[in-house]
Formats: sequence, C-alpha cells, structure tokens
Amino acid sequence: MQVLVVNCGSSSIKYQLLNMETEAVLAKGLVDRIGLEGSVLTHQPEGMDKVVVEADIFNHSVGIKMVLEALIDANHGVISAMSDINAVGHRIVSGGEKFAASVLVAPEVKEGIVECYDMAPLHNPAHMLGINACEELMPGVPQVVVFDNAFHQTMPKHAFMYGLPYEIYEKYHVRKYGAHGTSHRYVAQRAAEFLERPQEELKLITCHLGNGSSITAVKGGHSVDTSMGFTPLEGLIMGTRCGDIDPAVIPYVMKKEGFTPEQMDTFMNKKSGVLGVSGLSSDFRDLENAARAGHERARLALEMFAYRVRRYIGAFVAAMNGVDAVVFTAGLGENGVAMRARICEGLEWLGTGIDPLKNQVLGQEAEISVAGSAVKLLVIPTNEELMIARDTKEICQEVP
Amino acid sequence: MQVLVVNCGSSSIKYQLLNMETEAVLAKGLVDRIGLEGSVLTHQPEGMDKVVVEADIFNHSVGIKMVLEALIDANHGVISAMSDINAVGHRIVSGGEKFAASVLVAPEVKEGIVECYDMAPLHNPAHMLGINACEELMPGVPQVVVFDNAFHQTMPKHAFMYGLPYEIYEKYHVRKYGAHGTSHRYVAQRAAEFLERPQEELKLITCHLGNGSSITAVKGGHSVDTSMGFTPLEGLIMGTRCGDIDPAVIPYVMKKEGFTPEQMDTFMNKKSGVLGVSGLSSDFRDLENAARAGHERARLALEMFAYRVRRYIGAFVAAMNGVDAVVFTAGLGENGVAMRARICEGLEWLGTGIDPLKNQVLGQEAEISVAGSAVKLLVIPTNEELMIARDTKEICQEVP
Repeated sequence: MQVLVVNCGSSSIKYQLLNMETEAVLAKGLVDRIGLEGSVLTHQPEGMDKVVVEADIFNHSVGIKMVLEALIDANHGVISAMSDINAVGHRIVSGGEKFAASVLVAPEVKEGIVECYDMAPLHNPAHMLGINACEELMPGVPQVVVFDNAFHQTMPKHAFMYGLPYEIYEKYHVRKYGAHGTSHRYVAQRAAEFLERPQEELKLITCHLGNGSSITAVKGGHSVDTSMGFTPLEGLIMGTRCGDIDPAVIPYVMKKEGFTPEQMDTFMNKKSGVLGVSGLSSDFRDLENAARAGHERARLALEMFAYRVRRYIGAFVAAMNGVDAVVFTAGLGENGVAMRARICEGLEWLGTGIDPLKNQVLGQEAEISVAGSAVKLLVIPTNEELMIARDTKEICQEVP
Repeated sequence: MQVLVVNCGSSSIKYQLLNMETEAVLAKGLVDRIGLEGSVLTHQPEGMDKVVVEADIFNHSVGIKMVLEALIDANHGVISAMSDINAVGHRIVSGGEKFAASVLVAPEVKEGIVECYDMAPLHNPAHMLGINACEELMPGVPQVVVFDNAFHQTMPKHAFMYGLPYEIYEKYHVRKYGAHGTSHRYVAQRAAEFLERPQEELKLITCHLGNGSSITAVKGGHSVDTSMGFTPLEGLIMGTRCGDIDPAVIPYVMKKEGFTPEQMDTFMNKKSGVLGVSGLSSDFRDLENAARAGHERARLALEMFAYRVRRYIGAFVAAMNGVDAVVFTAGLGENGVAMRARICEGLEWLGTGIDPLKNQVLGQEAEISVAGSAVKLLVIPTNEELMIARDTKEICQEVP
C-alpha cells in the first residue's frame, strides 16, 4: 500500500510518498511559490538525484498534478502509475472542537474543516484547496485528514478553558486547542516503545522544540495539557513569537505604539521571541554562536528560552502528579545539544540529570539521562509524515 | 515607638497605628469616599467600640487630619498627642526598577515615585497625596515608603524579561515586576521561623490567594520568580482578572467585540476571572456554596483556579530546583479549607500531601501536611501592615 502525504500551505505543497508495508519513504518534495512568480517543484526520489522543475504553477490543482506526474515520471518517478497511490493523507492545522481524531474525507468532514477557518484562517482554506485538487485528480482514491490539534482534544475542561467570561468560549470558541499534536502523539508512542512499557501506564512530557515550540503532558497516551493555546502564540518563547506575557502588556503597547489589533498580532508573532530579545536572529544556532562570542542579548534569549521550558516541565509534572520521561524532539530538541544541557540544569528535584556524553547525540533515539535516573531524559526524532501515513492506512483499512 | 501605617488609594486611606515595642495594633481604620458624596471615617481603637464619623472629606489632607484627630481624641483616641507618632510608613504600589527596598522619604525618592506613575497610574499618584499630606501635618516626623513590588527586584533577568522586542523593555520598562511583595516577604520570614530554619537555606513557594492572587518562588529569602507581571493581571485566575491567556486572544477578541485597548483592559481586569467563568460571583465562598449545590460553572471556575495554582507550584519547584515548604496566605489561602484541599490533590510527586484534619485550620499558623512529608504545607496569616511598620522602625533607627 502506497500513501501520499500532503501538507498544503497557502502557496506551497509539501509531500511524501510512503510504502506502508515497509514504511519507507519513496519520494518527497515541495511545490513552492504557487500562484507567484518563480513557482517551482523540487522532487527528491529516494536514492536518486533531486529534480527541480520550474513552471507556472497557477494553483494547488496544477501543483498536485505536477507532483503526481513527477511520481510516475519514466526517469525520476518511483511508481509506474497513479493507481499505485492507494490513499492520500492530508495534514490539517485545525479541527477545532469538531475532530478528536483523524477521519476519512466526506462532505460533512469538509464542512467541518470550513467551519474551523476562523481558528486557522491562513491554513485551513489552503488545506481545502489540496483536498479538492486531489479529489479531482485522483477520483475514487480515499483521502484522510489528520488534524494537528486533534490529539489535544482529550485535555480536561479545567486545562483548556481561559479565565475569560464564559460567553467568549460560547460565541467565539476561544479556548486552548494546542498544536504539534501529530508530533507529540508520535514521539509519545515511540518513547513508550523505547522504554518498553505500555503507553497506558506512562506519564510523559514531550518537548517539541524548533522555530515553533510546544510542550505537552501525555498521561496514559492522552494529551492532558499543552503549552500552545487558542493559537500557536501561547507558551514558550519561540523563534519570533513572544509566548506567555502579561495580557495587560498588549493594550499598553498598542496605545504606546499606536498599533491596530492586526499590527499587535504581527508584532507578537513575527517580531518577538528570541529574535526580538536578541535583536539578532530567530535561529538558535546563530544565537549559540553569538552567545559563545560574548553577545549578551543572545545569551539572555537562550536563557529565557531554557528557563521557560524548565518551568513548563515543572508545571506539567504537577499537572500529572509525576512523570516517567521527558522527551526532546524536533529540530532544536533533536540537535540542540547545548540547549538540552541548558534546559536540564538543576533537575535534581525530579530525580534526574543529563549525561554530558550521552547528550552529544544528534537526531537519533537515545536516552541522555545519567545512569540510574528515576525520570528518563530521551531524544526521539519526530516524524509527522509517518504518523499521518499510518493514520491514513489504518482508516482506509477500516473502510468496508 | 509608635508607627502609623498608611495605605492611600485614589479615594481612600487605610491606616493602622502600631506600638513597635510590642508590635501591638493600637487602632486601625479607613477613610472612604474621599472627594465623593458620603465620605466617612471608620475608626477602630483596639478593645473599644468602633467610631464612625461622617464628614465632607474633600481631599487626602483632610482625611489624614481626621485620622490624626481620631487617634488623639479624648474619648476614642489611643495616644495623648500627635508627637507620640514617631514615624509614618506608606505602602506604595510600584517602585518600578528604582527601588529594591524600603527607604526614607527624601526629595529624590518622591521624584522616583512620580517616575513610576506609568506603572501604577491609579495608585502611585494617590500615595503621593498621602505622603504630602503627612509631611504637611506632621512636620519633622520621618516617613518611610515600602514598595509592594520591591521584594521581587531580586528576580534574575531571564525570569523578569518577556519574549518581546528588547526595545519595549528599554522604551517603556515593560517587564515582570510582580506584586504582593510585602506579603510574600512577611510570610516567607514567618515560615522560616515556624520551620526553625534560617531563611538563607530555604526554598519556599508562597501562595498569596485572595481576590487578587499571586505565587512567589523565594530562594534563600529572595524572590526569584513570581506569577504577577508587568501588572497584577498576569498569572493565576483571580476574582475578576483573567490571568494567563494566549496573547493572540486579545487582538482576536478586540476585533470580534470592537473593543478599544482600554475596553479590552477593563474586560480582562474586571469582567473575567472566576466571576467571568462562573457567571455568578468573584467571591470564592459564593462559588464553593454554588458548586456544592451543583452549579457546573462555579465548580469549573474553582477547578481552573486550583489547577493553575498547582501548575505554578510545579513551575516554581522547577525554577528553584526543589522546595522545602509551600505556604498559603491571604483571605483564601488562610481560610479556604476546601480550596486548599483542591489545590493539594495529587502532590505525591512532591513527596507531600494535605492532612484533612489539620487542614481545618482558619487564619492561624499551622502545618497542614501529612506527618513525615518531605515538603511541608503551611498556613501563615499575612500581615503587610506589620511588615511596613517593621521596615519603618528599622529605617528610622538607622537614621543618625
């Protein structure tokens, strides 16, 4: 069984084709600048040279068509016919409160995705373009949608509600939804396998640390709290996002700077985070280098980031009344050796500590805690595409 | 030595006269509705009947004059002459980054308080009225100012900075300042005495829970983090304040509701919190009663409150790499038996738990954790006025 995994942005399509007998990636690639000048397809068949195709890619339908052609191309293709694609799995940013799990596309599912436009105004409409293009180009091929926040639908109400008037929740669905759910779900499963223990009896804290970062408390395989909220702005300090701040700062800064709500939103999402604190870069490698060279605000930004992660670890230990393992994943979590060390300073309270030698690991599954730790520190590379493909396979196999 | 403690609001003056040899309160009272219709002085001499004086109290100077007259009154006075007041201690809401400790009033100190008007626009100007009135009416009597956020000036930079562009800190002094500092400092000192251990070696988490609530991590006698921020809006869910929310919710709700920044600020400060969630009351006793009677949203508000407190306890254990005692204080912390039990559910991870019988205590110093707990749970009634009087006495005795 071959599954095509598709992640449509407003002007891009990321894709992977996986063989689900072996879970091997057959090809992956990116359609970029859809509807813009310089639109291009970059196709990477496994074990072969990369192919770059420049073309006028007017819309998502044209983009998907190019992807399918690249996959069956005589020279750089990896399958012989379009009929070798047995199912498509789409990443969808927000399923709001409507979807607590992945689901086969059907008319009412598409309606549900449209109803969540307000929660993901840039992403969900792009996802719908992708779904419609695939339906048009691959009639009869089952399509599955995998929601990036569905995993967090198990949060209890006292964790997902804000201290705002209840009507704000009823009228506008303002509550915590979280994000990176597919990643947190994947690494929580892998961590249980790594620890050789059933997920049902485990308390895990999964730290997805990258340019966007979130932390999740996973109890018995279910998300019970997460650091991102109504949008991905809440929680940790990120590359360019401010994370948690005093809410009163927002009207204060708006008045001082004369910002509209839109400008304030952009200010907090694009100009803040470690970029805003350091005044230098949103890239943690740049900041590590600058900090080593004595850049004071780069060092501050890194310390602020690490301190917030540590605070969230503590908060989620309290939320679950304990923890068995803390898992680091995503770009910075998998490869940020210095950042992991900084985060794990002073974890004696938790009965654990980082082993400096084991912590040298890059992008591989590994335990990095000192021998005999009561709480394990793990590195588990994430794989959202594989999780989407697995969901797609499972749901398609359930179809009678 | 007699010290008069004064807390001036925009239309009120709270006061206490203390004998600092015995630390006994000689009298206390309230001037209310200054400059408004129905202005009134309520004077309570210790061990005597309460006196209520209705009068036109035009301004703070008239109010302070009435307080002094009440204190030396032949019938309900407690001292024989104004010269028996040896010093005045003023509570000041914000000392910004200018004041890390209490200080004797001098021209440059008054300038500093004025420079902090932006951080406490309703309170600091009222405090200045009180200081000026006392200087005018009690010439030569030393006056001391005790800042409500000075205790938190020991927070490290990685804890007090927000993930916003650094210029916002430089231009507008936007950072975490905290509040309730005098209370946190007082109960941390008392907790060390209660535990018969020097403060220097203790890690404490002090929970000031009332209509406004904040939690502080106190390490070696110094505040290293606190839940309130630039303003008292950040942190816990409070009576009418929302506490921590996704910052992106604010521009979102402003657009949906057509709010100005001022309206949004009022919405988050006055209409939110447990009042907004429950739709019922900002008073925790009302909510406990309603929850027992089956009111679903009252129960939710209480659970949200308790859950956030628990999360902050975890975060601050992580911040300090451990904790020796968790201290409950202020109205709800001292008397909220049901709330304390709710907060302390599931603290096994911390090596502690609440003893249901010991937890029946109301407004008295007590340990309420189960015997043999590694981490102690304490109730310590706060006394901000006494702390202000002690600072005042100490500083006046240092004056050559």
